[in-house]
Amino acid sequence: MSKFNIIFQPEGKRVEIEEGNTIIAAALKTGIDLTSICSGKGICGKCKVIINDITAVNQISNKEKEILTPTELEGNVRLACLTKVTGNLVVKVPESSRTGKQRLQIEGIDTSVEINPSVRKYYIELGIPTLEDPRSDADRLLEFLQEKHNLSSLQFEYALLKNLASLIRENDWKFTITLWRDKIISIEPANTTDRIFGYAVDIGTTKLAGYLVNLITGKVIAAGSLMNPQVPYGEDVISRLNHPDQNKLQDVIIEGINQILDDLKERTGVMSEEIYEMTAVGNTIMHHLFLGIYPLYVGRSPYPPVIRDTVIVNTEILGVKIHPNAKIIFLPTIAGFVGADTVGVVLSTELYKSEEICLAIDIGTNTEVVLGNKHKMLAASCASGPAFEGAHIKFGMRAASGAIEKIKIDPENLNVEYETIDNELPIGICGSGMIDLTAEMVKTGIIDVSGIFNRTLQNPRIRKNEESIMEFVVVPSDETKNTREIIFSQKDISQIILAKAAMHSGVKLLLKNYNIKKEDIHKVYLAGAFGSHINKESARMIGIFPEIDLEKIIIVGNAAGTGARMCLVSEEAKRIANEISKKIDYLELGIDPDFQKTFLNSHIVPYADLDEFPETSKILKQYGNYPATPPPKF
Amino acid sequence: MSKFNIIFQPEGKRVEIEEGNTIIAAALKTGIDLTSICSGKGICGKCKVIINDITAVNQISNKEKEILTPTELEGNVRLACLTKVTGNLVVKVPESSRTGKQRLQIEGIDTSVEINPSVRKYYIELGIPTLEDPRSDADRLLEFLQEKHNLSSLQFEYALLKNLASLIRENDWKFTITLWRDKIISIEPANTTDRIFGYAVDIGTTKLAGYLVNLITGKVIAAGSLMNPQVPYGEDVISRLNHPDQNKLQDVIIEGINQILDDLKERTGVMSEEIYEMTAVGNTIMHHLFLGIYPLYVGRSPYPPVIRDTVIVNTEILGVKIHPNAKIIFLPTIAGFVGADTVGVVLSTELYKSEEICLAIDIGTNTEVVLGNKHKMLAASCASGPAFEGAHIKFGMRAASGAIEKIKIDPENLNVEYETIDNELPIGICGSGMIDLTAEMVKTGIIDVSGIFNRTLQNPRIRKNEESIMEFVVVPSDETKNTREIIFSQKDISQIILAKAAMHSGVKLLLKNYNIKKEDIHKVYLAGAFGSHINKESARMIGIFPEIDLEKIIIVGNAAGTGARMCLVSEEAKRIANEISKKIDYLELGIDPDFQKTFLNSHIVPYADLDEFPETSKILKQYGNYPATPPPKF
Repeated sequence: MSKFNIIFQPEGKRVEIEEGNTIIAAALKTGIDLTSICSGKGICGKCKVIINDITAVNQISNKEKEILTPTELEGNVRLACLTKVTGNLVVKVPESSRTGKQRLQIEGIDTSVEINPSVRKYYIELGIPTLEDPRSDADRLLEFLQEKHNLSSLQFEYALLKNLASLIRENDWKFTITLWRDKIISIEPANTTDRIFGYAVDIGTTKLAGYLVNLITGKVIAAGSLMNPQVPYGEDVISRLNHPDQNKLQDVIIEGINQILDDLKERTGVMSEEIYEMTAVGNTIMHHLFLGIYPLYVGRSPYPPVIRDTVIVNTEILGVKIHPNAKIIFLPTIAGFVGADTVGVVLSTELYKSEEICLAIDIGTNTEVVLGNKHKMLAASCASGPAFEGAHIKFGMRAASGAIEKIKIDPENLNVEYETIDNELPIGICGSGMIDLTAEMVKTGIIDVSGIFNRTLQNPRIRKNEESIMEFVVVPSDETKNTREIIFSQKDISQIILAKAAMHSGVKLLLKNYNIKKEDIHKVYLAGAFGSHINKESARMIGIFPEIDLEKIIIVGNAAGTGARMCLVSEEAKRIANEISKKIDYLELGIDPDFQKTFLNSHIVPYADLDEFPETSKILKQYGNYPATPPPKF
Repeated sequence: MSKFNIIFQPEGKRVEIEEGNTIIAAALKTGIDLTSICSGKGICGKCKVIINDITAVNQISNKEKEILTPTELEGNVRLACLTKVTGNLVVKVPESSRTGKQRLQIEGIDTSVEINPSVRKYYIELGIPTLEDPRSDADRLLEFLQEKHNLSSLQFEYALLKNLASLIRENDWKFTITLWRDKIISIEPANTTDRIFGYAVDIGTTKLAGYLVNLITGKVIAAGSLMNPQVPYGEDVISRLNHPDQNKLQDVIIEGINQILDDLKERTGVMSEEIYEMTAVGNTIMHHLFLGIYPLYVGRSPYPPVIRDTVIVNTEILGVKIHPNAKIIFLPTIAGFVGADTVGVVLSTELYKSEEICLAIDIGTNTEVVLGNKHKMLAASCASGPAFEGAHIKFGMRAASGAIEKIKIDPENLNVEYETIDNELPIGICGSGMIDLTAEMVKTGIIDVSGIFNRTLQNPRIRKNEESIMEFVVVPSDETKNTREIIFSQKDISQIILAKAAMHSGVKLLLKNYNIKKEDIHKVYLAGAFGSHINKESARMIGIFPEIDLEKIIIVGNAAGTGARMCLVSEEAKRIANEISKKIDYLELGIDPDFQKTFLNSHIVPYADLDEFPETSKILKQYGNYPATPPPKF
């Protein structure tokens, strides 16, 4: 089989690939970050590239003809996932097709944790054995620790024991030991007691976030993120756990975690051997896939996880690039679709110790909702999908440079005022931008409360595309980075409504099952990878949750990741996480007789019963866009 | 390089070997059990074989000329370790050159242990998950165990967790779990609660012994033994720990342990997966070599072991062929030269809980001696060497079929009355036979108390060999299995005296340091791989230990192995073993100012000061062989 050279521009990265392979396969091989949400099925249209030679690839497919505009086709734009290489090729990857450098929400909330990590270090100076004192090396060390630090019942990691004698002597009986709980896991030359690090990881279905933490101060010293490398193997958790090669899925997630880590280490000068613990959160499927636990039954009714308890694994088994004797702790899960990430949210929001009833919503590809207080907590999972993370939305993207994150629409002329991440020229719209946009479009009457475009509005930004689908021009082409106008269509609106309906009905059914009213909610914690940039007014306006006083709503960012970091720095937090996991009751929304009805009613923006949204109704009336006839209600 | 075929007779085993390799290398390759004590240096003369073609091997070496008799040389007898193959060859391996099937001392002493192993099994029948009860698989199982058996705080072995979901479902929610302490290590179909086995191993410097134990009844169901496969890499512990390839030494010991195990499994029908724990004893060097712990410093003054505490390792790490999640427990050691085997002896003799002071002597390549009671115990190690195990003794052999184990000499005509193991025609003399023989030779005046042959005695059994060395014909050629007379020479006597002197001085110095007299000793436990066949009168007569009333002496067989078996069936025994290890004080004999003097005085049979041996003196007088002039005393 022939091989051809592909050069990726503007990086100039070169790769050799066999005839018939796709451009996306070549990109993966070189590490070019090319967006692909649909796993290379030619559906999402995210992986657009520009090629220099149309004779060096296969003919344009029908799918490409559907997705690409005539101008794009003329400009040699192709979808990387459908374009097969038949000759040497130069491929230009536009900014809009790149995963981009993710923006991170590491601030979270200001929860106070006493610094008491499982990892501790002690500097040791031992006397040399003599015929009068020929104690074993281990006893000599253990008795020193007992006398000087009052530590007892310590054990040695077996791997360390094998070389203990040499390590002690090479370091001339002066060295630093590292304890993980009551296990001695490392011996290092000289005094390194001021270097203790940990790594907290949030394994999202779509996104990974990693935090390098100084375990002496408890502070994050660097954070990074990456698209979950499992995405090409299936967009949602169900398609992932049905993937035939589970080992591969485990391998790529570990590679991803290591990739973030490599970057963090490079940026901070921290070495692998100085990181002695990793804590992880993630939904139950991510938990099973990462740990290599057979996941198939979690995806089959009644969705039982294999294990709920905290799992502790030796690093060497999983191959994460931290100290080989370090421990990896995956926080406990709750149920098949409410995982360790939710435990992290409940831990970091301190919902578990609140006297009053609070609500936590963790927006992600699955959105988990917890309602309760210190006496009783109820959790549910809503299949909200990855729309807010940019998938299924034509100009959707993750919260990276050039993403529109804030939007205002002038009710007079429908002009759009927007802000982008890093103040770059806009490329697309991220989750918080979509929430703003939807809210503004309802407010200004571009769409009605059912999400339908108002075809009577006369404005150049509102138009019908070639498929007769209504769309709104958010940013004209001359203002964008790649001179391509950013639009938001009826189809996109439908995706947003689907997502918010899942969340809204989840919250409503939780309230019902908890037997309280929305007025009884003391606080709403809005969490998620893009959470801290959400405009809470917009979120409330589109009805992600029932109408609650704005001052009760708190944006908490990546609260799941914060939970993982808390456990990293605190034994107490680990203990509480276990208690939370046992204490939360899981509500299976699908079996609630009101599920269908509530879900359908939630398709109205904000909700079928507008009386439940007096504030929002007031605004709609103010803008003259309160519906003349009430929306259908089931 | 040419290759040649070697056929070993009488088995008819065939092997191909490259030109220039030795016959012993070929034997190792086929698994033929050919004795080699000197590691193939042509010193021990144990590996005699008969070849069919002298032109297919190298010329007879000078060493062979020294060791082999003219008749042997004429009969094409060669030493397998010095004979290199230069053509196709048929090799006959005589019985006397075989390791032989070892006789085992498994009876030990009748110590009562409450059966309470670390391994337990429970039969489980679980309800199937429903939407109303979607608990995790692990919780479902743990809560069943809590409710039915009041078990809490259990954990899962990570390797098991990975396939837990499938295992439970394949077995239709009815299965048997195995606990090792609070860890769930296996799930098996149906109810197998009546099948729980363990494996206890005694790793001697020269010999391995293995016991397959039913953990429900506590009984040994089969036992086996093997020459320690490390012997070819060095006869004594020091040469082993200085061997450049420590990994190889670990590999072969594990292979040996597996080889015994294979045999035990075949004989009993027990499967690898039904053996859930292995306990091991052995001296400190064997301990380090088996566990792969860097051993070099144990052999250097002041001889500190790396670890004294009990070591617990996962089976999969070491590769012993029992259940992959089984645990391997090496009993704690005491000091560099007093190991877990001694802990086993103290445990099984119950010396540690005696009100009165007792003495335990564990005869082996190193002989460990413990003196004390529940309040204070003192231990020492004596470099007695492997003479009693057959090495360095011309007709010495281990306690296998055809070994002379009991000897009486008629004082009138010096005729020898003997008994062999399995009543086979005699091949050689094992340890207990050598002790009898030495005692009888002193008694009958063949040698004097200094061990010197009486050259004035006129008897056909006493003669001078070609090197002018005196020797005694124990069995004439026509009575032996291989028609080769069995002799015991001045050289052999010296080896025996060297060994017994090491032990005697060890005991004497312990008494001195404990500040008691031999009369204060309540009991003497005589242990060792050949221990239960020792004639205690003979042992006392040659002065292995000070003269103590015969009724105080108890032969306890392989008491170290018994200790390992006790720990296998009892958590309490494991706990006590740890206490023993901490409680015993180690006495370094080499630094005692009286060491040299006592050691030299111990070279007299029974001891330089005959007044200390009134009973033995009486017997010598009775036989007319009490020395006219007292032996030299330092």
